[in-house]
Amino acid sequence: MRYCAIIAYDGTDFFGFQRQKEQRTVQGELEKTLYRLNGKKEVTVHGSGRTDAGVHARGQVIHFDLLHARPVEKLRFALDTQTPDDISVPYLYEVPDDFHCRYQPHEKVYRYYVDLNRSRDPFLRRYAAHFPYELDIEKMKAGAQQLIGTHDFTSFCATGTSVEDKVRTIYDIQIEKDVIKNQLIFTYYGNGFLYKMVRLITGTLLRLGNGRLDDSIEEILERKDQTQVLWAAPPEGLFLEEVKYQK
Amino acid sequence: MRYCAIIAYDGTDFFGFQRQKEQRTVQGELEKTLYRLNGKKEVTVHGSGRTDAGVHARGQVIHFDLLHARPVEKLRFALDTQTPDDISVPYLYEVPDDFHCRYQPHEKVYRYYVDLNRSRDPFLRRYAAHFPYELDIEKMKAGAQQLIGTHDFTSFCATGTSVEDKVRTIYDIQIEKDVIKNQLIFTYYGNGFLYKMVRLITGTLLRLGNGRLDDSIEEILERKDQTQVLWAAPPEGLFLEEVKYQK
Repeated sequence: MRYCAIIAYDGTDFFGFQRQKEQRTVQGELEKTLYRLNGKKEVTVHGSGRTDAGVHARGQVIHFDLLHARPVEKLRFALDTQTPDDISVPYLYEVPDDFHCRYQPHEKVYRYYVDLNRSRDPFLRRYAAHFPYELDIEKMKAGAQQLIGTHDFTSFCATGTSVEDKVRTIYDIQIEKDVIKNQLIFTYYGNGFLYKMVRLITGTLLRLGNGRLDDSIEEILERKDQTQVLWAAPPEGLFLEEVKYQK
Repeated sequence: MRYCAIIAYDGTDFFGFQRQKEQRTVQGELEKTLYRLNGKKEVTVHGSGRTDAGVHARGQVIHFDLLHARPVEKLRFALDTQTPDDISVPYLYEVPDDFHCRYQPHEKVYRYYVDLNRSRDPFLRRYAAHFPYELDIEKMKAGAQQLIGTHDFTSFCATGTSVEDKVRTIYDIQIEKDVIKNQLIFTYYGNGFLYKMVRLITGTLLRLGNGRLDDSIEEILERKDQTQVLWAAPPEGLFLEEVKYQK
């Protein structure tokens, strides 16, 4: 029986999603818990995608197979409470055997939080990047417009990935200010994002807004050059919010 | 020269505010930093009150004396950036030599956050108590009304304090639901709070709302009995929001 779950995790104390020997990872912790729940038989967990060390998720989607069917709410509760405190499993469903959380077409929503306070807020330090500098938000919104649509995003892909096709579609980028917490919130909607793409785009937009970007977004994009030195905004500000599958 | 500062701290990794030998405390960390900034001469930090282990502050007020006057913004910046990441110092002022953050009459505002989600939110686990049970919020609001005003709060004071006068005034208690985060937020306004008083009141109101309180709030209050077994809600949900001094 194949199960799909929506999970959340505080990425601060993980070396990313993907299983690694001798490192604490989200996949590793989930597989450890499922091993215990599954009568000490190994279970492979698949994720909709990897998240890097320090990156958070509110709506990561995973799937895994168990030989024997289980009552869904009991299985969810066991996973939710037996995984460490920094992982939660709010939803779990039975899915058809051909459902695959990575290969099934989907859209992803990412959010990036920036703490604009002069003095870094201790309650945001794990969940936002600190950027207490001047920002021209209208300029950033105009720059973001140039990224919306279907493009070859080679320029915004960090080296160290084997993905060949670097064409992706960004449906929308929203930039909003939370005046109470003095935070800037970027929301990215797309059909997939390359390695460090959201952080490279966010870092570039922050530089643009701060008047420290020499080239235009259009020029950077058209260069299709992975070796440009762009700034990747730090991982603590990034959240995988939602993965949406087409019906 | 006397300086007063408004500070914020994430209480998770502190053994409370008050200096303790061989334990990491807020006062201890501030005094360590000031010792370095003050040419390796000891500086005593006074707080408006103590907060317990695990309790947070967004607006704790402290004061301390330095022999030589310093430029205020330079001193604030040094304190803000040289204290550990879980303490921030957003505001610092010069104050008259007779200002005392504890003895000067003041009002305090505390907030208590409750995570109502069935599955504990990993991003709230350090900053809210998890209480995924049914609650009659109107009943809790009615119970809170009975606590507003000037009362002998002996019943809501944990043992282990030497304070004799247990009469305090609560100006208001607000109970609001954040429907997005599925959180319940209590806000307490008063002229001072006894040892664990906010947590004992919050725990009692949660029990009342969950239908598990045998006595009425009025009965508990009138008993003036410190040995009653009341439930203190856990420290991670509690924030010292603000300390207000009369002019």
